[in-house]
Amino acid sequence: MYRIVLDVMGGDNAPQAVLKGAELALKSFPDLYLLLVGKEEFLKKFEDLPRVETISTEEFIRMDESPSEALKKKRSASIFKGLEQIKENKAEAFVSAGNSGAVVAGSIFILGRLAGVRRPAIATMLPTLKEPMVLIDAGANVDSKPYDLYQFGLMASLFLESIWNKPNPKVALLSIGEESGKGNQLVKEAHKLFQNSRLNYYGNIEGRDLYKGEVDIVVCDGFIGNICLKLSEGLAETIMEMLKNEVKKSYLYILGMYLSKGALKAFKKKTDWREYGGAPLLGVRGNVIISHGKSDAYAIKNAIKQALHFAKMELYKKLEKAIMENILEGEKIEE
Amino acid sequence: MYRIVLDVMGGDNAPQAVLKGAELALKSFPDLYLLLVGKEEFLKKFEDLPRVETISTEEFIRMDESPSEALKKKRSASIFKGLEQIKENKAEAFVSAGNSGAVVAGSIFILGRLAGVRRPAIATMLPTLKEPMVLIDAGANVDSKPYDLYQFGLMASLFLESIWNKPNPKVALLSIGEESGKGNQLVKEAHKLFQNSRLNYYGNIEGRDLYKGEVDIVVCDGFIGNICLKLSEGLAETIMEMLKNEVKKSYLYILGMYLSKGALKAFKKKTDWREYGGAPLLGVRGNVIISHGKSDAYAIKNAIKQALHFAKMELYKKLEKAIMENILEGEKIEE
Repeated sequence: MYRIVLDVMGGDNAPQAVLKGAELALKSFPDLYLLLVGKEEFLKKFEDLPRVETISTEEFIRMDESPSEALKKKRSASIFKGLEQIKENKAEAFVSAGNSGAVVAGSIFILGRLAGVRRPAIATMLPTLKEPMVLIDAGANVDSKPYDLYQFGLMASLFLESIWNKPNPKVALLSIGEESGKGNQLVKEAHKLFQNSRLNYYGNIEGRDLYKGEVDIVVCDGFIGNICLKLSEGLAETIMEMLKNEVKKSYLYILGMYLSKGALKAFKKKTDWREYGGAPLLGVRGNVIISHGKSDAYAIKNAIKQALHFAKMELYKKLEKAIMENILEGEKIEE
Repeated sequence: MYRIVLDVMGGDNAPQAVLKGAELALKSFPDLYLLLVGKEEFLKKFEDLPRVETISTEEFIRMDESPSEALKKKRSASIFKGLEQIKENKAEAFVSAGNSGAVVAGSIFILGRLAGVRRPAIATMLPTLKEPMVLIDAGANVDSKPYDLYQFGLMASLFLESIWNKPNPKVALLSIGEESGKGNQLVKEAHKLFQNSRLNYYGNIEGRDLYKGEVDIVVCDGFIGNICLKLSEGLAETIMEMLKNEVKKSYLYILGMYLSKGALKAFKKKTDWREYGGAPLLGVRGNVIISHGKSDAYAIKNAIKQALHFAKMELYKKLEKAIMENILEGEKIEE
């Protein structure tokens, strides 16, 4: 049995979608023990269920609230109260689709960073033409330093190796040209750190090759990572909408699309972010999974599935051990 | 008659695609007078054509060459020789699908910047769910300053107003959240400049809304702009490829797609970057159009069409005048 804390108040569709996701997860995963944190009124019907514990709090953090303000003034908000369960060893993983800045700030403040880690980062799985890959950082940090980028690459490598059994993953730096000299100041300096490291460094990768699946990990600053992620989602939706607008223009097109709807469905499933559920925040002393703000019940269920996997694999402990073994290398590079 | 200089040696498919594009353009645009710059051997068959002049040079700049090195050592390269025609008033616009860094550096060095402009920027047209919009900067600069971003927005506004008759265009800053406080240091500071300006400032826009068509201009640093642009192209291709892979799995799907191929074609045309042909470099003393490195003959023809339009509209002169009238505003902001 693994104990997962779920922030009932987090996300654009909270609490309904989150609670529905909790129900789905309880049905699907018999080794799940769920701690639900949120307003008492929403938790009532869960109180007598087996494998469920409820933790009520009246405070919660809105999606547009400042994380640092929230840390000062709302210490009993569901996100912070949830993270405290991890801190106190009452659960093995925390899942929230809420204010991701508050989850990051709260994780650093309440759980602390892994020894040697300067900045924790969000590692998001993305579909590619080949295998899924990791994009790090998907938005935990802005204005990263070159050494931060190197650590993101290191953490993601250790993550793929120890949690997903992917030996020696290929790491690339997102830039505007494949050649060594291309990029902004940040990327040019990080490039040197990667070149001198023991990581399986591929070199720079351009935006147009991001989804080709040539590498296992793409590293970038969280500002760019977040823009890329949201741009990709928005563009995929826009493409489908534009296509739909064209199809509507003729009954023949509609018939054609109807016949091939099986292919469209299979494609949609392969590229649906909801399949991945959530992204781990790497570099903090706890298993923290950040879900998409737009999560529906299905996405929440999958985020809980991820949380269970990370809890079983002891993600953060493995990462801490691996970082301790690898950090000397990093420290040497930093000098 | 308008005189357009075409860099025959520029682009991944040069010189064949460029020369084919030149032929297409000569047939389509009766008011076009073309100056072809490139190796003599490629220009021979054009020598006796009406409305064509050839300028031969043996040097050219490879796609992966360092622009600054090229400026030092290859001053008779086709890009620089072409730009000199503009400088000497022998033509009204310059088109190249070659090394864009060299086009930017050469334009600044040979033509000079417009009075008051700190950094010229590439303004790329992108399709959206509604009207096409401008993304600036698409890659002329990395590590821009807040005031640079403001100037990009100002130039793109004046460009849409004076060249495409779009009054009071809506300008947005690309960021990771819509709220004022969201973004990296650069965007937060630029945000204040835009708020205090007379531009029609929309505020921040997120990656996921880029293609929704809510704004006319999206401003960002060239490092991010270039990544977004290439990511979009790569993702659109990947989506189509993934879809194709699914369709292949059943004859029914293939039949369905065959029936709706008219819709697919119409969609493809609407989103095809080749329709736009090229992007103007705003802020230099000349009409410079940077085409996609992967340009085929059709894209080159369309880039020449754009060049003709900009030549007729006297793009850079109008921009210079408009900037002179608006720069005081900018200067005040800078203090």
